[in-house]
Formats: sequence, C-alpha cells, structure tokens
Amino acid sequence: MTQTTAAPVLPTVPTALTPLGIDSVTITDGFWGQRQALNGDTMIPHCLHWETQAGWLNNFDALLAGRVAKERQGREFADSDVYKLLEAMAWEIGRTGDESLQATLDDVVARIAACQQPDGYLNTRFDNPGQDERYTDFEWGHELYNVGHLVQAAVARLRTGFGMEDPLVRVALRAADHVCRTFGADGLQRVCGHPEIEVALVELYRATGEERYLEQARLFIERRGHGTLADIEFGRSYFQDDVPVRDAEVLRGHAVRALYLAAAAVDVGVEEGDTDLVDAVEQQYARTLARRTYITGGMGSHHQDEAFGEDYELPPDRAYCETCAGIASVMVAWRLLLAKGDLGYADVIERSLYNVVATSPAEDGKGFFYTNTLHRREAGTPLPQDRIHPRASGSGRAAWFEVSCCPTNVSRTFAQLASYVATRTEDGLQLLQFVPGTVSTELPGGRSVTIRVSTEYPHDGRVRIEVLDAPADAWELTVRVPGWASEATVDLGDGEGPRPAQAPAFVHRGVMAAGTVIEVVIAMESRWTYPDPRVDAVRGCVAVERGPLVMCAESVDQPGGADVATLQVDTTAPLRVEDGTVVVTGWTVEMPENAGSAYSAAPAKLERHGQDVRLTPYHRWGNRGPSTMRIWLPIAQGD
Amino acid sequence: MTQTTAAPVLPTVPTALTPLGIDSVTITDGFWGQRQALNGDTMIPHCLHWETQAGWLNNFDALLAGRVAKERQGREFADSDVYKLLEAMAWEIGRTGDESLQATLDDVVARIAACQQPDGYLNTRFDNPGQDERYTDFEWGHELYNVGHLVQAAVARLRTGFGMEDPLVRVALRAADHVCRTFGADGLQRVCGHPEIEVALVELYRATGEERYLEQARLFIERRGHGTLADIEFGRSYFQDDVPVRDAEVLRGHAVRALYLAAAAVDVGVEEGDTDLVDAVEQQYARTLARRTYITGGMGSHHQDEAFGEDYELPPDRAYCETCAGIASVMVAWRLLLAKGDLGYADVIERSLYNVVATSPAEDGKGFFYTNTLHRREAGTPLPQDRIHPRASGSGRAAWFEVSCCPTNVSRTFAQLASYVATRTEDGLQLLQFVPGTVSTELPGGRSVTIRVSTEYPHDGRVRIEVLDAPADAWELTVRVPGWASEATVDLGDGEGPRPAQAPAFVHRGVMAAGTVIEVVIAMESRWTYPDPRVDAVRGCVAVERGPLVMCAESVDQPGGADVATLQVDTTAPLRVEDGTVVVTGWTVEMPENAGSAYSAAPAKLERHGQDVRLTPYHRWGNRGPSTMRIWLPIAQGD
Repeated sequence: MTQTTAAPVLPTVPTALTPLGIDSVTITDGFWGQRQALNGDTMIPHCLHWETQAGWLNNFDALLAGRVAKERQGREFADSDVYKLLEAMAWEIGRTGDESLQATLDDVVARIAACQQPDGYLNTRFDNPGQDERYTDFEWGHELYNVGHLVQAAVARLRTGFGMEDPLVRVALRAADHVCRTFGADGLQRVCGHPEIEVALVELYRATGEERYLEQARLFIERRGHGTLADIEFGRSYFQDDVPVRDAEVLRGHAVRALYLAAAAVDVGVEEGDTDLVDAVEQQYARTLARRTYITGGMGSHHQDEAFGEDYELPPDRAYCETCAGIASVMVAWRLLLAKGDLGYADVIERSLYNVVATSPAEDGKGFFYTNTLHRREAGTPLPQDRIHPRASGSGRAAWFEVSCCPTNVSRTFAQLASYVATRTEDGLQLLQFVPGTVSTELPGGRSVTIRVSTEYPHDGRVRIEVLDAPADAWELTVRVPGWASEATVDLGDGEGPRPAQAPAFVHRGVMAAGTVIEVVIAMESRWTYPDPRVDAVRGCVAVERGPLVMCAESVDQPGGADVATLQVDTTAPLRVEDGTVVVTGWTVEMPENAGSAYSAAPAKLERHGQDVRLTPYHRWGNRGPSTMRIWLPIAQGD
Repeated sequence: MTQTTAAPVLPTVPTALTPLGIDSVTITDGFWGQRQALNGDTMIPHCLHWETQAGWLNNFDALLAGRVAKERQGREFADSDVYKLLEAMAWEIGRTGDESLQATLDDVVARIAACQQPDGYLNTRFDNPGQDERYTDFEWGHELYNVGHLVQAAVARLRTGFGMEDPLVRVALRAADHVCRTFGADGLQRVCGHPEIEVALVELYRATGEERYLEQARLFIERRGHGTLADIEFGRSYFQDDVPVRDAEVLRGHAVRALYLAAAAVDVGVEEGDTDLVDAVEQQYARTLARRTYITGGMGSHHQDEAFGEDYELPPDRAYCETCAGIASVMVAWRLLLAKGDLGYADVIERSLYNVVATSPAEDGKGFFYTNTLHRREAGTPLPQDRIHPRASGSGRAAWFEVSCCPTNVSRTFAQLASYVATRTEDGLQLLQFVPGTVSTELPGGRSVTIRVSTEYPHDGRVRIEVLDAPADAWELTVRVPGWASEATVDLGDGEGPRPAQAPAFVHRGVMAAGTVIEVVIAMESRWTYPDPRVDAVRGCVAVERGPLVMCAESVDQPGGADVATLQVDTTAPLRVEDGTVVVTGWTVEMPENAGSAYSAAPAKLERHGQDVRLTPYHRWGNRGPSTMRIWLPIAQGD
C-alpha cells in the first residue's frame, strides 16, 4: 500500500480535519509563492553546493572508498542534512516535476545506497573501519536521528508518486527495518538523544501500512523519560528523558528535541486512539505557547543548551529561537490542528511561518539565520559569505554553518508548504492560510470542489475566493478568521453585503456553485501588543504587529540611521502606514553620559527629540547590511 | 632574594600605594573575620574532602603508579584546583601557623612533587604513558594555567616565611623554569587558552627577583591577540586572542580569562614602567565597569561561553556572574588601585567582595554557588549535598562541581583577605576596607604606626580608629569614604566635633599620638538605585542597596511566602529598616489569568494588594531552602 495524497502528514484514522496534498493545492505567487520559487531556483542548489563544499555529501563516497574514518567532515548529524536536502528535493520534484532535480536526487541516492551495510545500518560516523562501533553514544551520536530524516525523505517519495521500488525508499525501508529489529520490544532498550526517528516511523507506517513502524515509534515514545540517557550538565530534561512524555506538564530542554518528540507523540496517539497521550501533549504545548514562546512564535531562550527557559524567561536579546524550533512548532501545531480541529492552531502556524521560518533565509536565498534574536545591539560587520560559520548567531545571515540543520529544514518546509494551506472534512473545505492559488478536493460521493484564492495577503487583508468547481448541492466552506484580527467581514455575493465574521472562522453551508465569489476582508490595521507583566525582560515596552507580521525597528530605516537603543515610542499617538512601513510617533533620546557605572541614585533625566520611528516586518531585517534592531520598543514615560 | 611581606601582590617598583601583608593586618571578627574562621575550620577541609572524593588529588598517585591514563578523574584543569587549595592552605598557615594544616600541605606537596618529570613538566592529563603528548591542545589543555596556580601557591609560601628550599617552592620553580625554557623568545610561540600563568610568573619574579619570569610573562602578554589559538565557535575573543592586549577597548569573551589576563597586564606594565599598557587596561576595565557589570559587581552575561555580553546586555535572570570572575575583578581592581592610587577601586573591590565573593559560599561553608544569578524564578528542590553537580547554576548551592574552580578560589581569597584592608605610602596609612582588627606598618625612618579598628560594618557605619602606636611627628591617615555614601563625618577627637568627609577619602595629616581616637561615621541609609536606560533587561525596575550591600527580595521573607514575581514597589514611600532587614512599601499583584498567550492587545490591569516587601542582603539568599529571589524590583506604575 502506498498513499497518493502528497502531504507530509497523513493520518490513517479519521481526524477532525483531513490534510490536503501539494497536488491539491497550488500557490501561484505572493509571499509564499515567491519563497517556493526561490527555494527551487536558489536555496536547493545553494544547499547542495555547501553540502558538497563542506564534505558532508562526500562522506558517503569516502565511506565506500574505505577512507571515511580519516576523511569524514562535519558533526555526527551531517548525514541528516543530506537526507533533509533529499526530502526538500523530493517535495520539490513532486511540486514541479523538475527532471534535472530528479537526476540530481538519483545521483545522491545512489551514492548513499552504496554505503548501506547488509543489515540496513547506514552511517558515515560510526561502525566503519577505524570508527567507533554503532550504538555506543546514544546521547550525542544521532544515529537514529539520521535514520529518521532518511525515512522522511522516503515518505516524500512515496507521497509524490514513487513506489516501494524507488531507490531512496528502498534504502530507507532497509534502514527502518534494521531499527525495528534492533530496538524492538525485545531489543536494545534505548532511545536516541535527539528525537526524530519517532515522527518518521509513524509517517512510514502511514505511507506503507506496515504496523511494525508504528509499534517501534510507540516503543520509543514510551521508553523515553525513564533516564536511559546520561544525566548531563544540562540535566536529562535536555533530552526530554527526565519525565515520561505523557506525564510532563510543559515542553522543556532542547527546544527542537522537545518539539519533534511532541509531534511524534501526537502522531502515535492519533494512530493508536490514545487520546490521553494527545491531550497530554496538547496541554504541554498550550502551556509552552502561553509562557515559553516569543511574540514571533519563536521558541528557546537559552543559547547554552538551545533550550526552553523557565516560564516567562524570554529575553529578547538572548533569544535563541532556532529556525528549526520554529519549524518544529509548526509540525506540532499542524498535528494538533488535524487531531482536534481547533483552527487556533492555524494562527500559531501563521505566526511561526511569517516570523520565524520566513526570517531565516536572506531575501536572495543564499544566507540563513540559525538563531532568530528579537534584539540586536551591535551592528557588527558583514559576515564573509565564502566560508562556513559556527552555529552561533551573528549580525547577519551566514551562507552555511558547521551545524547547518536550519537551511535544509527551511527548504523542505517551503517545498511542502502548500499542504498547510487548507484541509477538508466530509462536509467541505477549510481555508487556513491566505495565499493566491487554487485548492481542490473531493468530498464524499465524488463531489469535487475547487476554489481559486486571490489575495495580496499579508500586505492587504482582502481575500477573494472564487468557486471554480462545486457540487450542485450544499457544501461547507470554512474560512479561518485570525485571532489577532480586530474585525473581519465576509461578502457571500448574495446581495446581502459584507457580514461580520469572528475568529476562529466563518463557516458557510449552502449551495455555492461554480462562479460564486466570496469576498473576505480581514482588518490589517497595525496594532500595539503588550507583554504579560511576568515577561520581565520587556517590561515597559510594546511591540507593533500588522496582520500576521511582527514589526521591528531597524537602524537602517531610522531618520539619521539612529541606533535603536535610543528610540522610545508614544503609545497614545496613532500608528500610521506610510510607503508600506508602519510609522510610530516617538523620540530619540540622548542617553546620559556614562559616569563610570550603569547604576545611579536617581533615574536618568533623558533629553528627548521628537522623531518618527519607522518599522519594518521582522522577517525582512538584516537584509540591508549590518544594523541594530529591536522588536520591543520602550514606551516613553512621563518625566 | 625572598620578600617577607605576606601579600599576594607585591610590586618591586614604587607604586602609588604599597600593599600590606597579612602579617601587618589582622581581622579579629565581624563580617570578614567570621568568614576567615569558617574558611579555616570548614571550607579548607571541605575542599580537601571533595578533591579526594572526586579523585583529583589521587590523580597524582595514579600518575606515580603508572595508571593515570586509565584512572584519571576530572577535567583538564583538575590539577589547578589542588594547587589553589594549596595556595589557600599556604595563606591560612601564614595567618594562623596551623601545624596540622602544615602537615596536610606537606603530604599533598610530596605526592605532587613525586610526579614531576626531570625537565620540570608536571601534569596529570598530558604526556604520561597512554595520554596525549604535552602541548598538543593550547585551546583547552590548560597546561600553563595549571602551572600558574602551582606557582601562585609557591608565592604564598615565599611570602609567609618559607624559603627557596620549601618543597612546594622547589616544585613550582622547576615547573616555571621549564615554561621559560619552552616558551621563551626563541621557543614555542604559543599562549595558553586560559590566562593565569602570566599573573603567576610576575609574582614569582617579584618573590624571587629572577627576571626571566617577568620576561616570560611579558612575552605571553604580547603574544596574545595574534590568533595563535583556534577560531572556535565563540570566536577568538573567547580567549582574548582576537586583539592584542594593549589595543583592546573593553574586556570581552570568557570573563575569568579576560580578567586574569588584565591583572597580569597591569603587573607587567607596572614592573616594566610600561604606562601605556597599564593605561590601556585601566580604560578597558573602566568601560567594562560602566557597561558590562552587574549591580553586584558580578561580570559575565552569557552561560554559553561564560562570557561578557555586549554593552548593557545584563539580563538578571541569565546572569552568569561566575564567582571566579568576581574574584578576578578584585584582582584587577587591586592592581589598578596600587598602580594609580585611585581609591575608587576600593569601592569596586568592596562591591565584589560583599555581593559576589561572599555570596558564593553557604553560611555553613559547605556549599557554593558557581554562578551568581540576580533573579531566580523557580524555587526548585534542594540539591543533594552528597554528590558532585555540574557547573551550572541551580536553585541552591552545591557541595562540589565537576568544574570546581570557585570553592578553592573563594578559599584562597578569604585566607589572604587581610592584605586588601589597608595600604601605605611614605606619608602614612590608607584604611580601605572597614573591618575590626589592627593595621601596623613602618613608615620611612623606622616610624611605626599601629591602629586598632572597631566597627560593626556593614551593619553599622560607625568606625572607631584608635592609634596604638605612632611617630611623634606628623603622619597621614587616609580613610576611604565610599562613593555610595550620601554622607560621612570624621571626628578627630580634637574637640571640634564631627566634620564632613567626601568620597573618595578623608585625609588627615598631623600628629596623632598613641591613644588618639578618630570616629568615622558613614551614613548607611538604605537607598534606591536605578539602572541606566540602556540596561534593557531591568527597565522599569529599581534596586535597593544599604551601605555596601545589594539587597534582594527572597520569597521566604515575604508575608505569606509570596512569590517574588508578584511584587511591585512604591519608590515614593520611604525605605525602612526593621529587625535588620529593609522594608519597602509595595504590593503583591494578582497576575492575569493566562489566556493562552503572553501577549495581548492591552496592558494587563493588575489587581494590587498593599504589602510590605522585605529585603535581605543578597549574599544571604538561598540559605534557607528553595526560594525565588530578585534584586531588581518592578516599580508600580499608575494605572
């Protein structure tokens, strides 16, 4: 059995909402369409270039030649970045049918396949002559993590028209079978330091119908939280090995690990009808969203362990907000959305996509942020783009990192993005994200529906929906209304004019024949956003949002290039939109002469000069040379 | 030549101020006297117990037995912790003449001496059978760092009455000579990833008169900043190898490394008459104090790399403020004080001693903070005291750490503390720190001076100075007046009553015969302290200080055990002192029900309940079980 819906997540049991594939949804242009095009034209070739340059792809050739122990390049998880790129290529081939990309994929897969051991084990870092033996370092070895990404690439092939004999699928199946044989109920009672195999195995089960993969995923989920991993400096919470998944109260430890695990736990819970497990993750994620998430949707407050902080520990200048954690949060929210049908999760996805995932790549597709800080104090100097940089954050995007999980993660997400636009139920269609393009599906009884969406979103809140094909009888169209929208209207074209719509959705059930046009208007006014008083790090500050976009002040936009450290804003004055940017009434402040200490017996008396503060969408920052930047703006207090 | 003044820092050239030794100053009781007693009675035995338990001391025995490659315990710098403990013991023996401690020291030294190679090289981690060769890892190997601490222990012996034949001195001299032979002008052009050898070699020069040690220290200083160390993830600034010492503008990178290096640069500059070098460090340190230092005097904003942040990047909840960095800051300030005669540095020393160094050890002397956070959000659970913990900060002090540099650093500092109390010039005596005890010195012409100081400082600002011995002619008594004091008076006992005194000092020149009593009163009112507006992380907050003590709100002191997250204070109401604590008028705030997000369209309307906020000296926090704590208190704003 292979599934043909081209969706990255495809439950086999009924869920509240059913996903659509990238074969049912097209994104023709606009914010995300341009990024999909950039991904195909530039980002995928860029990643391939750097994986070659960095030697990660060549590790497989070195393995085959018997030289890998001496010549291997990259970290323990370098293989996984090759696999993530294969996944990106696979979705991109599914989206475009690009034959040249298919040839590239074939070449890479052949080089990988040649390295697989007879029992299915495949890794360039372990178990080859001169290397450590396999499964000797569960904390940091990333062996199962690597297999997980290999499997996800294979799932992309299975979902885009390739069968069980596809070379990439065959390699992945052999690797997955090896994992099941080795770590089954009677096998090694261990888990991988970095979750990922779990989410991959569930999807492989869904794509193949082979129950052993689901069972193995369930075993890994249940096995976690019992202290089989070492008690490292950051504690076992780093690996989520401190508390069993279903007993935890909040996400904690390394953010990407926590979120990948949570996504897999939802998948297992859904497939096994284990609603307790799904509910447990939902509650953990809710508390995480409420207390451990930045306004951008970004997650992770600690650089040291790439980890969540404590509740409300959200320093903007030390935000980690790893790009991969933003993607992983989308993965969790999407699975909960399908399972529970709560369209509020589409708000979460929108926030992360526009403000974390879209922020990472440079506008030219040739550089990436690994971390996504909310406040940059020093402009610094441009990063040389001709060499590999450390993981750590800088004042600009880097062409490639030593830990380069993010670029390929962005790439595979962009390539599969159409799948997150809409869902279906037996009654109709749910439009979740506003992109220009078409959405098609088949309702029960062979009743096909196709709509065309036209919009300039997020620059403009008008969304025009034209029914291109529809059943003759009543069906249900659901249009998400974002929770942040102060106002929204829907005009069904029935002569009654616009009627108000409320979050989370406008639902219309009725006969909507081909030719019906529905006009949705979501108010896109700029708005002030205030932090919870427990978020100590941004006390006395305010942020500005416009539609789904978090705005920021970047020094290059300020009159006179004023450093953002000197800006204060007046929340009693109206926000204006000028030339596509938001303008705030405010001041530049003459900072006190530094008197040898940052502390004094009286509050500083600040000389203020009236000045507009110009804001740009956060995802755009850092594209115009070194700059200082901040999202949270100090509110001017009366003197 | 050996010097007999029992001071840890003893320039051979004239400096603005001349240090006194622990043989000239006694601390009889009070805040620091009690800590010195605790150090001798409890902390030194505690450290010896744990260095044995952790196996670091036994590493030397294993080396001798040829088993060190297999059996060695601890990190690369474990040897240095044994040496720091030897230094603490040496000063303590100098202070007390403790014969039992002398026997312990003899035993440890004999075990170490047996391991020294014929050429003077001595290390349990490198260059023994089965280990990596010597000098193959300058970034992380800590080989010269270890020698530095060995040398400092030897200097303590030379300064406390032991000669060149003392077994510890002999081992250190052989190790230092090996370093000079290996890394001299024509030798290996390398530096140690962790500065420390430099400051030690200058002091060994000062203690022995052997110029090669000074020359080697100078070479290491000049060699640094030219990129001989690897460009690691955190950049070469981590090692201060990014910019030559004399060209830098601010301290940066790993805080302890930066400060040890700065201390050594001052020493070399002083000895060589290189005022440019001294001035460069002074400017770097001034900018660091002004922009990169916490109110406690603590330094280091990054957990990840134990490093300074950017200017004004001072998050209280992620403060690193390593105890050793506080000690290292005292080292730099003390050297600049001697070189420049600016008594403002004694303010810096006082701040760090009372609010960083005194905070680390538990009141029972059996636990330590490695990091010294300014804000603790979660009370957590008590740390088990029967095992070794990771370095990282926790909700309580730990008996021992895997990286346990701090306990022995506190111990050696407490043992030598008397040396920081006073200095002398040709004209007289400068009283810098207020401790009960006696200070004696000899002025030119054999004119001896002895004073007895009586005070309850810092609980009370009255300082009584009685002249016990004095020349018959005029001499000069200088009494530091802290920069934080709103008011100070001095009564010379001449019938004219108290006269006002200003920071940095009251200076009286005259005949002060034995029996003269001088009464100094330093106003110890509690006071509000406000942050520079550029310290974003504490915007809208205020701190309270009393005398040299930074105060904090700890949950265990609040009526009803209120979590410190709920406290707000009223800066328009007076600060009161009740039962030895400072009481602030304020409120507890009912925090908003969390509505799924930490961000909302309007500022939270907070229900307030009038409540006193009780403050305790920061150094005392965490001694009464798990608690939440904060130094920076939100100021209530009008609704």
